[in-house]
Order: sequence, then structure tokens, then C-alpha cells
Amino acid sequence: MSEGFVLKGDLCFSRASGDLEVMENAYLVCADGVCKGAYQELPEEFSSLPLTDHQNRLIVPGLVDLHVHAPQYTFWGLGMDLELIQWLNRHTFPEESKYEDLSYAEKAYRAFADEVYRGPNTRAVVFATRHTPATLLLMDILEGSGLAAYVGKVNMDRNGIPPLQEESAEASLADTEIWLQAALGEKRYANVKPILTPRFIPSCTDGLMSGLKAVQRSYGLPVQSHLSENQGEVAWVRELCPGAGSYAQAYDAFGMFGGDTPTVMAHCVWMSDEEIELMRKRQVFVAHCPQSNMNLSSGIAPVRRFLDAGIPVGLGSDVAGGSHTSIFRAMSDAIQVSKLYWRLVDESCRALTLEEAFYLGTLGGGAFFGNIGSFLPGYEFDALVIDDSRNLDTGPLDMQSRLARVVYQPDRNVIEEKYVRGKNIFDRPLGNAGFKKASKEEGVV
Amino acid sequence: MSEGFVLKGDLCFSRASGDLEVMENAYLVCADGVCKGAYQELPEEFSSLPLTDHQNRLIVPGLVDLHVHAPQYTFWGLGMDLELIQWLNRHTFPEESKYEDLSYAEKAYRAFADEVYRGPNTRAVVFATRHTPATLLLMDILEGSGLAAYVGKVNMDRNGIPPLQEESAEASLADTEIWLQAALGEKRYANVKPILTPRFIPSCTDGLMSGLKAVQRSYGLPVQSHLSENQGEVAWVRELCPGAGSYAQAYDAFGMFGGDTPTVMAHCVWMSDEEIELMRKRQVFVAHCPQSNMNLSSGIAPVRRFLDAGIPVGLGSDVAGGSHTSIFRAMSDAIQVSKLYWRLVDESCRALTLEEAFYLGTLGGGAFFGNIGSFLPGYEFDALVIDDSRNLDTGPLDMQSRLARVVYQPDRNVIEEKYVRGKNIFDRPLGNAGFKKASKEEGVV
Repeated sequence: MSEGFVLKGDLCFSRASGDLEVMENAYLVCADGVCKGAYQELPEEFSSLPLTDHQNRLIVPGLVDLHVHAPQYTFWGLGMDLELIQWLNRHTFPEESKYEDLSYAEKAYRAFADEVYRGPNTRAVVFATRHTPATLLLMDILEGSGLAAYVGKVNMDRNGIPPLQEESAEASLADTEIWLQAALGEKRYANVKPILTPRFIPSCTDGLMSGLKAVQRSYGLPVQSHLSENQGEVAWVRELCPGAGSYAQAYDAFGMFGGDTPTVMAHCVWMSDEEIELMRKRQVFVAHCPQSNMNLSSGIAPVRRFLDAGIPVGLGSDVAGGSHTSIFRAMSDAIQVSKLYWRLVDESCRALTLEEAFYLGTLGGGAFFGNIGSFLPGYEFDALVIDDSRNLDTGPLDMQSRLARVVYQPDRNVIEEKYVRGKNIFDRPLGNAGFKKASKEEGVV
Repeated sequence: MSEGFVLKGDLCFSRASGDLEVMENAYLVCADGVCKGAYQELPEEFSSLPLTDHQNRLIVPGLVDLHVHAPQYTFWGLGMDLELIQWLNRHTFPEESKYEDLSYAEKAYRAFADEVYRGPNTRAVVFATRHTPATLLLMDILEGSGLAAYVGKVNMDRNGIPPLQEESAEASLADTEIWLQAALGEKRYANVKPILTPRFIPSCTDGLMSGLKAVQRSYGLPVQSHLSENQGEVAWVRELCPGAGSYAQAYDAFGMFGGDTPTVMAHCVWMSDEEIELMRKRQVFVAHCPQSNMNLSSGIAPVRRFLDAGIPVGLGSDVAGGSHTSIFRAMSDAIQVSKLYWRLVDESCRALTLEEAFYLGTLGGGAFFGNIGSFLPGYEFDALVIDDSRNLDTGPLDMQSRLARVVYQPDRNVIEEKYVRGKNIFDRPLGNAGFKKASKEEGVV
């Protein structure tokens, strides 16, 4: 085999939801960017590969953020006392408007990419803004970082504010063509792919949605949007789409809801039984964003019901609705709100376990990208080597306990190596990407 | 004036609930361990005091943790998938039993104290265990750290497990006497005081509660305990105390519920209107522990109702029900769950604002100690000098925004100086206390 290596350490990964595999002092084999398996004893066939013994470092798959607004990183943690519409009007729309200015966009997108680069997420599904040049710039920057991502230029031709709203469906679609020609044509990114991004139903006229379906079909692209985050929004969609039986059906009517169109929908807080059944049937991914749903007083998504129905679910940071890019934080947020859901809303929906939350943030979300998010053979090799020694200050712990501590207090740990598709992106030459691994003094997870 | 100094920087403190004072490039004066005020221009009378210009560091009052179990620090983040009783039986009771061994207690309590020492809390109200020698050891260690604290040897003579339960009310009271004689007598701590600590009603026979009241009266001590954390517990107390009208009245019947007995009760999640009125009347402090209440699926305490009723409220980490000692984390947890409470339980209870949460974690909890938790003149000088520059990576921010980011992502910041009662405890000689300020590489808030 051509390019391969072995990492030795304490491995932890999901085989399926709730099925956590832990292997101490084990061997993790990578060749040609793909995992060849995790072994307690190193098979003979791999014995000539370069081996790094990471001793008692924790080695886990890289985390997957299924929903994040890159242009909103500039105002994370701010405006959290505002209700949704005020927050959109005071922070989101004015901020996104600034990305018309490419030098502003460059500075802001580098800060975002640097934050994600240093953290535990190896993959992200990203909203950019309506601006095609800035979106391509973001894609350039992410490609330079070594991270893998879907990135979407946002379509929005109604109910916005003047600087941010596109002039018409035709203009939005024309801009989308320009974007895709560049993103799929001369750019030829290895790790960053376009995803069609109608902001949400209230932002997109029927004409725009139909036109986007044609684009989707023509290029075979996946789709991302928002679904049922908040009750006011659900009511609004009912007014805008009186013909659709539900918000989910409003997307489905345009063929932008799973089936042969891989789709991820953020939030899904307020869902009818019929919508849940439709999501199951179409295998639409839920990007569960628990912190954002708290910060914007939206509610708690019924994740247990999605899992029981066999709907694919992953986690989203939803920066800046959420304040943290790290999907380790999203894992503990998800567990915590699921306990409140059980206690206050529906006692038939038992809370998420640590194993389930870890699955959601790795394999659950990774499935949107393909074979990603686990150390099963054949999976793309995304991995983190983590120094969690600070968590052992009161004595040794078993592997599940170490994982629990990394999830509940990610910032106490240091990521020493970070692999995406078999490359240690912390080793990349700086080049013009300018990315620098967090020094030990800043190293956080 | 004898010992005094001035700190210059960007000040932020509460005057009252929701009344946040921010002063950039301002002067904070301390003399004899007491704050002499915050000034935009330095008054002449202070001009001869040594001045340190902290430039654009954020300077805030030290935070107050109204409820933390020091012996549980060893298992923070663990067992979070268990329900309360299983968690108590598998982790809490076996772990607390180990504190009979003083060498175990020393190692564990040093780790706890070191964690708090490095963090943003300057004061804590602490549960130890039933063991008097280990409790005195904890008090020694905390005194050596420079932190200020109330520490309680726990009384528990029923419904425990054999290694942990005290043999009888008489034995418990005798041990309490020994503890108090030492803690108030030969120890003569400057900053660490005893607080009477009946674990909770289910742990304490009527005889023990009556005996403790006599001790309380005799020594003039404050009291801490737990109240209405979880519905099963509330039902249990109803069985144990059929004569009492409520859980609150069960404590009140023994004179251990405010009035002339300063009292802090943790949780208060499930409270009747009558209990709320009794708490108001008696001015019993609530230690609101939002993360623990999520982690143990207890629910959400109705903090807005307490504030509207004029009940004094502060924040508690409740380690290890909660996973973080930092009260900055408790502030964002409190805001987040209050939004879910508003959305899911009672729309008349509006969510907590950033200013209110900051008040709760400083002045709100500080009031239990006296004039603590603010930079008003006459207040004891507890303060943090914080380097929050990492939060300014996307540009300058106003003071409220800087505070918001410190609250929402405390671990991105570095505490440079930490004052308790006018002394910078990061400057203390190591002596036998062995405390070391977090180096910049580990420095977290």
C-alpha cells in the first residue's frame, strides 16, 4: 500500500447510535486517506507502516458540524438577550450585508476558519451569505485550512432587508450559476463542495425555489435550509404556503426534501407527526442545534422521536445562534436539553446518553458526507489525537469516563493532531493559508 | 490610609439586579481590604496610592458559588447518564465515604481547591463530608489558598449507607461540637468559616435537627441545605414529615429557615406559592444550580418568581451535579434554562438577562457573605483582572459585549490577578499551601 501510517493510543468511536467502541493501547491504521481498521494487535500486513505511539492520548474521529453560519462568527455571544426577529435585524442582517466588501469578508472568514481549524470539528456544513465573491473566498480559505466542508451561497429574494436581499429570483439564480461554475469549475477544490442554500421558505419565492430545483437536478447537489425553528416562523410559512400541508411539505413540493436530493434541515423543533414521517421516508437529515434553540428561546427538538423513527440526525453549532463552534459542546448541550425535554415535555422520550450524543456529533452527522465519523474500515480518516491528562488530576479513569470529561469540559484538553482524509492538517505548511495550530498555551478543544 | 492601591482598567459590576455599571479606563480603589469606589477620574485623596494600569483588561468582582460539594470534585462529569438515586449510590456515597482516609482527603481536596483557586470564584459555600478531620483539613487548605468560604461538616443520621451515615443524632452532634471547637477555636481562620450543614430532611432525624438548632443558636451560625430539587424527594419529605405543611416548613419547624438564622437552600426547583412566600418572609437564599438541575433531570427553578418575590438568589455550581466550578458557566446556564422555562413552562416568567445573571453570580450570592460582590464603596475587595483579548479577534467591542463573551465562553480568557478581601491571592507565597496560579498555557477562566 502506498501512503499509510499507524497511530497507537486509546481509541474511542461509534459503530452505530449508542454503540461505542473503546480500545486502549490499540492500533489505528490509515492508508490512502482511508481507515483500514482499529486493532488490539497490529496485523502483520500493516507492520511495515510508520507507527506513532501516542501513548495514552485519546484518539477519536473528527467532529461534524451540520449547521453553522460562517459570517455570523463575528458576533458570537452577542445579542443573546434579544428575541429572534430583533436579533436578526440588529445583528444578523446588518452583519451579513458587510460581506459585500471582500476585505471585510477575508478578515472575518479567516477568523472563523481559524477558530474551527483549532477546534475538534473536521467537517462542517456552512451557510455563507448571498454574496458570491465572498462565498468563493470562504471556500478558498476553508480549502486552505485542510478542513472538509459543504459551503452554500445563500439564496434569499424576499422578506429580507435591502442590502441583503437579492433583487429577484432570476438574479439569485444567475448568481448561483456564476458561483457554481467557479466552485465546480476552475476552483477544483479537493475538500470543499457547494451545497444549495435557500435560506428558508420565508426568504424564497416559489419562482426561486423552482429555479433552484432545476439547478439541483442539473448539478446533482445537496441542499440545506431551516425547518420549524420557532412557532412564529411556522405560522408565517402556513400563511405563505397555504397549499402545503406543512412546512416540511412546502420544501417537498419543490423537490428539495430528501429522496434523491440529499438534504439537511436545521432545528426541527416544532414538528407534526406527519412531518416526522415525511422526514423518515425521505431520509432528510436533522441538524440538531440545542444551544441555539435555548439562546433564541425556540424550544427543544424531540431528538428521541427522530432517532426512534430512523431519521438521520447530527449536531449543529448554529453559530451565532449558538456561541460555540465546538461540537463537543453541542454534545453536552444535546444531552442536557434532552433531560429537560423528558422532565418537562414528554416522559416517553428518554434522555440522550453520552454514547448517543457522541454518535450524533461524529457518525450521525458524518453520514451526510458519506463514510465519515467512525474508525470502521473503509471510513475516511478524520481523527483527533487529544491530550486529556488535565482531566486525570484526581486519578486514572476508564475510557467512557475520559470521553465524558472531554465532552463536558472540552476546553481543558489539547488537540495535538488533527487528521482530515488521512492528512494531519496541523502539519500543513502555512503557505498562503496562514493557519497555525493553537499553541499549547492557547490549545483548547 | 494604611494599605491601599488603585487598579486602572475597564470596570464592570452590578449595583443591583439588572443594574450593570460599566466604566472604561476607570480607577478602582482599595484600602484595608475594602473598596473605596470606582471613579472615572481618580480623586485627589487617592492620588498617592500605588497604581497599576491594567490598560484594557476587564476588571469585575470575584464570583460567588453558593453551593458546591468539595468531595464530589473527584467525579465531575461522570455518571451523568444515571438517574439521581443511582448516581448517589454509585458515585456520591461511595466517594464521600473515602474521606475517612485523611491522605485520600488531602489529595482530593487539594485538587478541588486548586481548581477553584485558578478559576473566577473568590467565595464559595461548601459541603464537605460527615468526617470532621477531613472537613478541618479542607478548611485548612482553603484558608491556605486565600479563597473565602463557608464550609460545612455534613450531618446525616438516617437513610444513608453504612460507611457514610452517622451512628445517631447524639454522635452527629458530638462530632459537630468537636468540629466547631476546632474551627472557631484553635484554628482561628481569617477567611474560612463554619456553616451548619444538615444534608437534607431525609438524612436528618427530628432529634438531630432540634439538636442542630441548639448549636446554631449557641454559636450564631448560618445554615445550608437542599430544598425541593426533585419531585421524588419532595414526596419523600411529605411522608417523613406529615405534620409539616411543606418541605420548606419542615426546615422552618426547626428554626433552620432564615429569619435570624442566615440560610441558603440549594435548588428550589419545585416550590409551592406558600413556600415562596415563606422564603420571602424569612429571606432565605436560593442557590440556583441550573446545570445540575439539567444533568440530574430535576427541572428548571423558577428564578424569575423568586426575583419578583424579593427572595435573595445566587448561583451554585453544585459540583458534581454540575460539571463546572466556574460561576461564569453557571451564569450562561441560568440564562439558557430560563429561556426554556419561559418557552415551555410559563410565558409570564421572562428569561434572565445577561445583567441579571451577572448580578446573581456576584452581588446576588455575595450578599450571603455580607457586603461582597460589587465595587460599591464599602464592599469587600474581591476582584478579577481578566485578559479577554482573544474574544476581540474580530474587532473591538463595547463593555456589555465583552462581558457577554466572558460569560458565554469563559475558557477563552485568562485571569491575571485575583483579589480576595484586598489581597492578590495569585501573589501569595506558596508556603505549605502549594497553590500555583495557572500558567498562561493553562490559564482559563
